[in-house]
Amino acid sequence: MAKEQRATTDKIESGRRVWLQEVGPRDGLQSEPRTLTFEARAELIERLADTGLPRIQIGSFVNPRRVPQMAATGKMWRCLRKKPGTRYSVLALNSKGLDLALAENIPHVEIYVSASETHSLKNSGSTLTKALKEASRMITTALENGIGVTAGVMCAFGCFYEGPVPIDKVLRIVKELDSNETVEVGLADTPGLADPEEITRVVEQVGKLVAVDRLAVRLHDTRGLGLANLRAALESGVRRFDTSIGGLGGCPFIPGAKGNISTEQTVDALESMGFRTGVDLEGLDTVRAELAQLLGRALPG
Amino acid sequence: MAKEQRATTDKIESGRRVWLQEVGPRDGLQSEPRTLTFEARAELIERLADTGLPRIQIGSFVNPRRVPQMAATGKMWRCLRKKPGTRYSVLALNSKGLDLALAENIPHVEIYVSASETHSLKNSGSTLTKALKEASRMITTALENGIGVTAGVMCAFGCFYEGPVPIDKVLRIVKELDSNETVEVGLADTPGLADPEEITRVVEQVGKLVAVDRLAVRLHDTRGLGLANLRAALESGVRRFDTSIGGLGGCPFIPGAKGNISTEQTVDALESMGFRTGVDLEGLDTVRAELAQLLGRALPG
Repeated sequence: MAKEQRATTDKIESGRRVWLQEVGPRDGLQSEPRTLTFEARAELIERLADTGLPRIQIGSFVNPRRVPQMAATGKMWRCLRKKPGTRYSVLALNSKGLDLALAENIPHVEIYVSASETHSLKNSGSTLTKALKEASRMITTALENGIGVTAGVMCAFGCFYEGPVPIDKVLRIVKELDSNETVEVGLADTPGLADPEEITRVVEQVGKLVAVDRLAVRLHDTRGLGLANLRAALESGVRRFDTSIGGLGGCPFIPGAKGNISTEQTVDALESMGFRTGVDLEGLDTVRAELAQLLGRALPG
Repeated sequence: MAKEQRATTDKIESGRRVWLQEVGPRDGLQSEPRTLTFEARAELIERLADTGLPRIQIGSFVNPRRVPQMAATGKMWRCLRKKPGTRYSVLALNSKGLDLALAENIPHVEIYVSASETHSLKNSGSTLTKALKEASRMITTALENGIGVTAGVMCAFGCFYEGPVPIDKVLRIVKELDSNETVEVGLADTPGLADPEEITRVVEQVGKLVAVDRLAVRLHDTRGLGLANLRAALESGVRRFDTSIGGLGGCPFIPGAKGNISTEQTVDALESMGFRTGVDLEGLDTVRAELAQLLGRALPG
């Protein structure tokens, strides 16, 4: 009951601080045809941290032959000039990835399971049941090792292949993954199909299990509804979002999926709505312009 | 009091029918470097009407040497295969344009004044006072001739040059232009700088002068907030919007101004929020794809 109240009364008028996690160096770069050099990637991460972004996803542990853009994530962590106060994380796709993250002393991992059976099979080769079991074990291991965990649900607001995702499925995954109280719970609109009503509905239901200030929402702009969905989530009390410089990103296993909501447009919109992000918008814009040159393509400004 | 109540109680739950006006053939094409042939323009308008769009702005009367994309608007109206029930309109920039529209028996004209002094001078060469006086005279003439009028305010939500536009200025213009009760009152976010809070604020104030169901809002997606602003306007009771196929458009006198919110994304978003538009989304998509070929550039799908 107390939690239910929190989810519905912590409205847009309350906390004005919003925490953004920059996912461009991971979700963004892995979708780009051009692979940045190790040095360029490191510099990108360092300069993003310099703009005041409080959280940065620096990469993931995957087979570099399959995803060359994400090679040498352990070395990246060792070499990186770290900004005090910034939370750096990696995405751990499986137990092997988690072991590598632990071996490198990476302080925060993100562990996601897809609420869609079809997407789960395409993205991880696992059925939902199997993926959920492995993720649970990984989360327990990570927490035992004293590192921070974001436990998340992909396709939490619907699936390109399966259409609407039953809310009970999302709630069951959240319950299972968050049983040991992780740092935050992620809800990702992986294909970018959600509309504001769907965001409100899912956030308010999940908010009964997890305090809404522990929820992190990831939005994609596939339908042009990215910032409308951001606003709906804000109205439901969400204050943590994943965004990507220049709106980079997508999902290799979802046809037509567009990039994440862009960090610049999100910061601009949030500040204009009276929220504080702590991010230097001009600094971001400089990084975006230079990144566009490195990637050899225009990035919306 | 009654009107005030209407503006604040006619919320998103009430009327589910939304009327879109397609402005691609006018605002859209005039921003394109490539000029369509007369036949291609006519076919575009006819095919847009076939998708069920209830209102289409077919052009404006301007000097064809200055805006070749808008040449022969009178001939366009005569030659067009008209769909019964569709409202066709032109933009009349000055008395001369209105006279031409009247001479061609065009059934509906749109007459806009900019709430920003600087933008007014750049866009029409007139001070606000002068432009307002001319627009008032034009509206009286149009109404006396028995044709429909949309009286509108450009930069109603802020100006690229002047920043925030005082609400009193917007209200004064609306009062003056609508003194003889026009068909509808337009509020345009010409530079695309508005955020949802600004939309709500202006609509609720103007809604005290004009029943909110007579308001037509035009949004541009400069900041990625287009559909978030659409939703804010819907929540304030607005049911009329200007949109543009493929998100075409902009303003030649505002640096960086992006196109209108796209008709396809708006229809998709509205239908998904439970509103009815009467527009065939698949048909629209076919028109968009063919238009992209004619214009020789990609249009977001």
